[in-house]
Amino acid sequence: MQQQQQQQRRKGSATRTWLVISESGKSHVEEVGKHSIMRRTGLPARDLRILDPVLFYPSTVLGRERAIVVNLEHIKAIITASEVLVLNSMDPSVIPFVRELECRVATAAAAAAAATAIKNGSSGEMAVVAKGDGPKVLPFEFKALEVCLESACRRLENETSTLEQEAYPALDELTSKISTLNLQRVRHIKSRLVALYGRVQKVRDELENLLDDDMDMAEMYLTDKLAHQLEDNDSRNDVVDGDSKSDDESDDDLKTNKSSSGNVTGFKPNIEELEMLLEAYFAQIEGTMNKLSTMREYVDDTEDYINIMLDDKQNQLLQMGVLLSTANLFINAGIVVVGLFGMNIQIELFDASPAQFWETTGGTIVGCLIMYLIAIFFGKKGGLLG
Amino acid sequence: MQQQQQQQRRKGSATRTWLVISESGKSHVEEVGKHSIMRRTGLPARDLRILDPVLFYPSTVLGRERAIVVNLEHIKAIITASEVLVLNSMDPSVIPFVRELECRVATAAAAAAAATAIKNGSSGEMAVVAKGDGPKVLPFEFKALEVCLESACRRLENETSTLEQEAYPALDELTSKISTLNLQRVRHIKSRLVALYGRVQKVRDELENLLDDDMDMAEMYLTDKLAHQLEDNDSRNDVVDGDSKSDDESDDDLKTNKSSSGNVTGFKPNIEELEMLLEAYFAQIEGTMNKLSTMREYVDDTEDYINIMLDDKQNQLLQMGVLLSTANLFINAGIVVVGLFGMNIQIELFDASPAQFWETTGGTIVGCLIMYLIAIFFGKKGGLLG
Amino acid sequence: MQQQQQQQRRKGSATRTWLVISESGKSHVEEVGKHSIMRRTGLPARDLRILDPVLFYPSTVLGRERAIVVNLEHIKAIITASEVLVLNSMDPSVIPFVRELECRVATAAAAAAAATAIKNGSSGEMAVVAKGDGPKVLPFEFKALEVCLESACRRLENETSTLEQEAYPALDELTSKISTLNLQRVRHIKSRLVALYGRVQKVRDELENLLDDDMDMAEMYLTDKLAHQLEDNDSRNDVVDGDSKSDDESDDDLKTNKSSSGNVTGFKPNIEELEMLLEAYFAQIEGTMNKLSTMREYVDDTEDYINIMLDDKQNQLLQMGVLLSTANLFINAGIVVVGLFGMNIQIELFDASPAQFWETTGGTIVGCLIMYLIAIFFGKKGGLLG
Amino acid sequence: MQQQQQQQRRKGSATRTWLVISESGKSHVEEVGKHSIMRRTGLPARDLRILDPVLFYPSTVLGRERAIVVNLEHIKAIITASEVLVLNSMDPSVIPFVRELECRVATAAAAAAAATAIKNGSSGEMAVVAKGDGPKVLPFEFKALEVCLESACRRLENETSTLEQEAYPALDELTSKISTLNLQRVRHIKSRLVALYGRVQKVRDELENLLDDDMDMAEMYLTDKLAHQLEDNDSRNDVVDGDSKSDDESDDDLKTNKSSSGNVTGFKPNIEELEMLLEAYFAQIEGTMNKLSTMREYVDDTEDYINIMLDDKQNQLLQMGVLLSTANLFINAGIVVVGLFGMNIQIELFDASPAQFWETTGGTIVGCLIMYLIAIFFGKKGGLLG
Amino acid sequence: MQQQQQQQRRKGSATRTWLVISESGKSHVEEVGKHSIMRRTGLPARDLRILDPVLFYPSTVLGRERAIVVNLEHIKAIITASEVLVLNSMDPSVIPFVRELECRVATAAAAAAAATAIKNGSSGEMAVVAKGDGPKVLPFEFKALEVCLESACRRLENETSTLEQEAYPALDELTSKISTLNLQRVRHIKSRLVALYGRVQKVRDELENLLDDDMDMAEMYLTDKLAHQLEDNDSRNDVVDGDSKSDDESDDDLKTNKSSSGNVTGFKPNIEELEMLLEAYFAQIEGTMNKLSTMREYVDDTEDYINIMLDDKQNQLLQMGVLLSTANLFINAGIVVVGLFGMNIQIELFDASPAQFWETTGGTIVGCLIMYLIAIFFGKKGGLLG
Repeated sequence: MQQQQQQQRRKGSATRTWLVISESGKSHVEEVGKHSIMRRTGLPARDLRILDPVLFYPSTVLGRERAIVVNLEHIKAIITASEVLVLNSMDPSVIPFVRELECRVATAAAAAAAATAIKNGSSGEMAVVAKGDGPKVLPFEFKALEVCLESACRRLENETSTLEQEAYPALDELTSKISTLNLQRVRHIKSRLVALYGRVQKVRDELENLLDDDMDMAEMYLTDKLAHQLEDNDSRNDVVDGDSKSDDESDDDLKTNKSSSGNVTGFKPNIEELEMLLEAYFAQIEGTMNKLSTMREYVDDTEDYINIMLDDKQNQLLQMGVLLSTANLFINAGIVVVGLFGMNIQIELFDASPAQFWETTGGTIVGCLIMYLIAIFFGKKGGLLG
Repeated sequence: MQQQQQQQRRKGSATRTWLVISESGKSHVEEVGKHSIMRRTGLPARDLRILDPVLFYPSTVLGRERAIVVNLEHIKAIITASEVLVLNSMDPSVIPFVRELECRVATAAAAAAAATAIKNGSSGEMAVVAKGDGPKVLPFEFKALEVCLESACRRLENETSTLEQEAYPALDELTSKISTLNLQRVRHIKSRLVALYGRVQKVRDELENLLDDDMDMAEMYLTDKLAHQLEDNDSRNDVVDGDSKSDDESDDDLKTNKSSSGNVTGFKPNIEELEMLLEAYFAQIEGTMNKLSTMREYVDDTEDYINIMLDDKQNQLLQMGVLLSTANLFINAGIVVVGLFGMNIQIELFDASPAQFWETTGGTIVGCLIMYLIAIFFGKKGGLLG
Repeated sequence: MQQQQQQQRRKGSATRTWLVISESGKSHVEEVGKHSIMRRTGLPARDLRILDPVLFYPSTVLGRERAIVVNLEHIKAIITASEVLVLNSMDPSVIPFVRELECRVATAAAAAAAATAIKNGSSGEMAVVAKGDGPKVLPFEFKALEVCLESACRRLENETSTLEQEAYPALDELTSKISTLNLQRVRHIKSRLVALYGRVQKVRDELENLLDDDMDMAEMYLTDKLAHQLEDNDSRNDVVDGDSKSDDESDDDLKTNKSSSGNVTGFKPNIEELEMLLEAYFAQIEGTMNKLSTMREYVDDTEDYINIMLDDKQNQLLQMGVLLSTANLFINAGIVVVGLFGMNIQIELFDASPAQFWETTGGTIVGCLIMYLIAIFFGKKGGLLG
Repeated sequence: MQQQQQQQRRKGSATRTWLVISESGKSHVEEVGKHSIMRRTGLPARDLRILDPVLFYPSTVLGRERAIVVNLEHIKAIITASEVLVLNSMDPSVIPFVRELECRVATAAAAAAAATAIKNGSSGEMAVVAKGDGPKVLPFEFKALEVCLESACRRLENETSTLEQEAYPALDELTSKISTLNLQRVRHIKSRLVALYGRVQKVRDELENLLDDDMDMAEMYLTDKLAHQLEDNDSRNDVVDGDSKSDDESDDDLKTNKSSSGNVTGFKPNIEELEMLLEAYFAQIEGTMNKLSTMREYVDDTEDYINIMLDDKQNQLLQMGVLLSTANLFINAGIVVVGLFGMNIQIELFDASPAQFWETTGGTIVGCLIMYLIAIFFGKKGGLLG
Repeated sequence: MQQQQQQQRRKGSATRTWLVISESGKSHVEEVGKHSIMRRTGLPARDLRILDPVLFYPSTVLGRERAIVVNLEHIKAIITASEVLVLNSMDPSVIPFVRELECRVATAAAAAAAATAIKNGSSGEMAVVAKGDGPKVLPFEFKALEVCLESACRRLENETSTLEQEAYPALDELTSKISTLNLQRVRHIKSRLVALYGRVQKVRDELENLLDDDMDMAEMYLTDKLAHQLEDNDSRNDVVDGDSKSDDESDDDLKTNKSSSGNVTGFKPNIEELEMLLEAYFAQIEGTMNKLSTMREYVDDTEDYINIMLDDKQNQLLQMGVLLSTANLFINAGIVVVGLFGMNIQIELFDASPAQFWETTGGTIVGCLIMYLIAIFFGKKGGLLG
């Protein structure tokens, strides 16, 4: 006993500030030690590590026996059947989430109270009306989970929109002018895009995994599990006295119900509600991911486009280089001709009249030009020059 | 009670214009508030958000307890067992869909009326004939769903054809002439292609997901579920009086029927019909996707081809540059020779006859030419020049 | 009744020419309307659309209640338990398929007739011998399906071989000489390769999907389903009189047998035979796909190789350009020197003997050459040149 | 009867040489016709085609009713419950496999004989000891299958090692010197790598597919199936006399046991042993594939590296070209200056002293040099040069 | 018997040094032969091969009948229900793992002893308290497995961090200066990244595979299986005397419980605990993989960026080359002009005053400059020059 207390004191130093929101929508801040949280939520130490802000775990939603561990983007929370424990509640990005959660939970609590009041008045038939009247009321843990999902999805959606507003103009500017500055801006945008895409995909995969595994969803019906467990404790005694026949039947249960916890033996909640909830946010996050994919494709296309443009420009420059070299060649040939007449070897020409100077000059220049034009003509004909 | 009314009034401001098509094929426009739709269709607010034209959700088909939510491309509708609610019904692209839907539903209603009339006359044996006589009559919700799928598939098919007619000529023109204009056209086509591909794939994935999950398909048998539910309500009283044995059996149902809603306990419709319906449109949308993939591959191949062509052109230009440089080199050598004879240092040559001028000139030119040809010969032999 | 006839007349205009091959192996051409086919095969209109040669649906094999719809490459057929309906039977590529089908069916019919004859003579034990004697006899629909698969696989195999014989020489030629002609040939081969790959993959995926879904395979046991259905009709009356116990049991059937049609309730054929048949053709089509993948990788590798080769060639050309520019530089320096001595500014040198001319000339040339060699030496040492 | 014999004679021409290894480890060569193999192993013709060395089927392992068809790399064999039939047994690469198989089977047979001898002496308790004493003895078919897998995995492993020893030096040589020879060597290595990767992946996929499908594994328990079948034949008569109750139960079997053959109805072997066997070879083949993937990545990285290096070299060459052009420019400017003084237009300078010649010469050269250095300075400052 | 001993002696040569950690946390080194390990752990030879350090098997976790084979990164161990056998225990990277394992096991043993002591005092109610008090105590094999996973994950995490600290600066340096040294550093980092990514992915896939297959997880409950087996042995005799009814029921068990070993017939442990354990490490390893993916994307983006930058630089250099060529051209034109006046053909100009020299000079230079500026103007206007 003493040893245990010591251990607790040692570990107790690692307390964190949790914001606790109760079923009634009231919230207060608590300084709770790791060990105490483990006892309160039934979570092992390794599940708490997922929420550790230092370790940068990717988005994860885990259904445990008595709690749902939610690590969705900025939201790090533990949801139990009766309260929500939120980490980092002072973070400016988490505050609106906490407000929304408090408000939503409070409204529901009020509505529930009202409903109970009415029900007590006109019991049975009212329930039937409620049924046909609209969607069912979600249990506390799903109301909290929905606010978490909403907040995470909205945040990702917002970041996507912001990125979109930056990316498209930057890309269009880059295609019109390739400069180191523009390139670095686009590169920065691209790495943000990739990081955001990864985060969105992680949330999407997490939702998909949950939707694919019915038992994981069933695990999340904390309120129902709690209710069932209490009931079970009551009825267990009867079962022991039951005949062997019914025992076989319950064995059968065990088999089908592959991964249920020992405490929820034979408990199979109707996961319809949760499935519907997750599907809706799955559709939203898919929409966000679509936008990001489109942006990514646009970036890749722009890069391909720039590459082709640069290659094409390069060829135009090389063509211009060839044209200039050709021109140079014939001018040099002209220099040779002119140089020949500058040699100190005497010929009759040199004694002639000025007209001959102009004839020579003109002949040289025109000759070079004609040769140049012929060269260009053959170059174009051969297809080398555009 | 009062509180609830107030709430409704506040939210009631967000009314939308829905076109309601009843089972008889008649349609009328209704201004309905969000809350009222929720009550009418049993859908939660988050499912309605999927249909919101502002949020750009990707294509989604969701089977809910009393309604099918259809967000396929331009079609945003809610199908219940007795009516179809269509959003944006004034959109020119939606109008033909609405026409088709009205017509199809009306024909079916007429046929059903006729059939009932006949049946009443010569009951039993007629049913048998009908069975062997052709495919079965689809329930109302599937008739509506089929028109939705048909309209969405046709629209995607049409857009694909349009794009095909634009893309192939543009690409072929680009390969024959790389210009900024052509490049931008192709780039524009490519981004349209990518966007369209994404949309087609989304519809395809949605159909595949439905086909993969039998329970999701079962959820969509609204008419059958309704019928079963009514029946169930009748029989429930008997069950309560039943022996424990039968109770166990129905528990068994619950287990197998993993994700069925509480109201449809023990209800397992024959999903054959819906599977066949979806399979046919799945094949069609796969055909469309195949076309788009082929186009995409063609674009990529064209880009690769252009890149190799540009690189090859570049090398030809560089080769021409080397040829010109070589020529220039020997002309410059000629200039040196000629310049040497232009030096003011006296040698015997300078006192000689004009024949020597021509010999010098010819010797210089021929010497340069020979050296040039030798250089080119070695260049070609060494493999550097093509 | 009248209305229905009218409808039929109207739709009857869309008749097609079908080749009908009966169980006995005899074939005849029939002009059948769409509606009549639907009644004959129990297929809905949308399944018939899959066979429409105008719509270019990808390869599909669908098991329906009373027919198998086969759209494999060039073969568009409907297989029922007693006949095969083939479209486009006049197409030269379809004719060998029809021949093979007739022959195979006729042989089987003859063998069956013989077996029946023998059996009638020496019944029981013979059957046992037959069992140990070789593989079982396939029902009619699978014999037809096998011929379809064989024909489609052989066709794809042949196209692959043809492409292989063209592709490898063309690619090798391209690596040895990059010309626009060779590039276009390879590009053409590549797009054919991509298209063929897509078709082979489609057939492969279709077979894989069938093999993955046991219920889809069970749907294809048309003969067995027919036999079971008849039997069922006989026994149904007894069931109605049966006790509630057995009713529960058959309910149980329904649950497990998730997607079976209403008519085949409780019917679970042994899909072993069909699985074995499909597995064998799956292995063959995988072999074809392997060849195409290898070819595709070869094309991609060749492109990479050409790109590196072109880049390397380019650098060699640029190196040669640098060498030439360097040479030019020093020749130009020579021109300056020579030019200096051509200036009209008098120095003593100009009055000297011819020996000085040669000394100057030699000095200039040798000086330039030495500087050139030094430059090249440093260029090589610095790693820039080769 | 006669017809059948004829048929057999006709087909009998296609005999192959099979090496038959019996349960006792003795082997002999047999010339067996296709038809006779089909009767002996219960395989249909299309399964035999998979072993045909001409058709190049990819690696396949198929469990059939009375035989396992093994086509793993070089090993083409049929395994039945009592013998192994090996094709191509004369192939040098197959001989070690055959040796190993004979040896392994013989040892097992001896051990089994010894065990039986002991058992007969001291029966019951010995069995218990054996259980705790080590892994269980595998049935004949799995011993043979293990030798096949071992041989195929070892061969792939060896080829991978050989390739590794060639690839890494070749790639490193290429990065240090890009020559056509090196490029072609790397290209050849790359295509071998791709082909080997494909083969390894095929074997890996085949093992994974088997591990994923419990029924496929169950099909392979040939000895157990045979034992069960004999037993079944004995017990069937009793079943017929059994009550309807037990009949229902066996129906139930049929349902769960989805794809079992008619002969193995109700037979569900314990697939643990085979799963463990396959898992171990799966891990080995994954190790081989990992090595190949790493090699592949290395090749791709090397290519990227070469591309960047070539591009960088190119820019260095272009930079050098710009430097040379700039130098040339100023030398040409020097030529102009020198040329000016070579003009025949008289100025005072020309009448001056030799000092003026040297002043002019020096001024021109120094002027050009200064201008060149200024140009280079601005080029470097502007970032264009280095 | 003798034969077996001989065999053992022969194989006994292949002894390895194993560190054995018992349930009490005490450890000692043992030299154990392969055969002896096989008997001790019930593993076949091929499972032991997975741990062979020479064969470089990828990370694998296999649940066997009486042992878990763990090959995770540097940790090669066999976990049984009562001890852990560790290979390479002298390896410096394994020592901390061994320490941690000893410590963890010892603490648990102490706690268990304490708990037992307490329980014996105040039995029943204490257990209930413990239940609500925190997470359950893991069986020995999972405690060991958790330490293995923790050690492997931490090692991969550390390597990732080390790589991150090296990679980002190296990449940023490369973008600022492309040198062979920097390129080779980045290339080295990239290949390390790829190798590490492969290892992380292997561990992740292994965990995912385990999480996906409930039966594989169930196999790992060694302690529970052992307990169940003992119990089973006791109860088996009763079963034999049981009625046929209950026999049928247990047959049923067998069917559902598809891949359970014969010894664990009818044993279905609650895999919740193991699932939770694996999920937590799965989340951690996914976090590591995310970091590596991000790094990989960053490397790829950097390469793309460098390529565009190099291409852009190249074009700038070519542009500069064109500018220089153009300048050269006009300077050469100037040389021609100057050369013309150097010809020995007499014109009046030559007899003129020095002013004419300067006019000629100035005219030539200004003319060339103007032509150059015009050329550059048109070049810029035409878009070729920047």
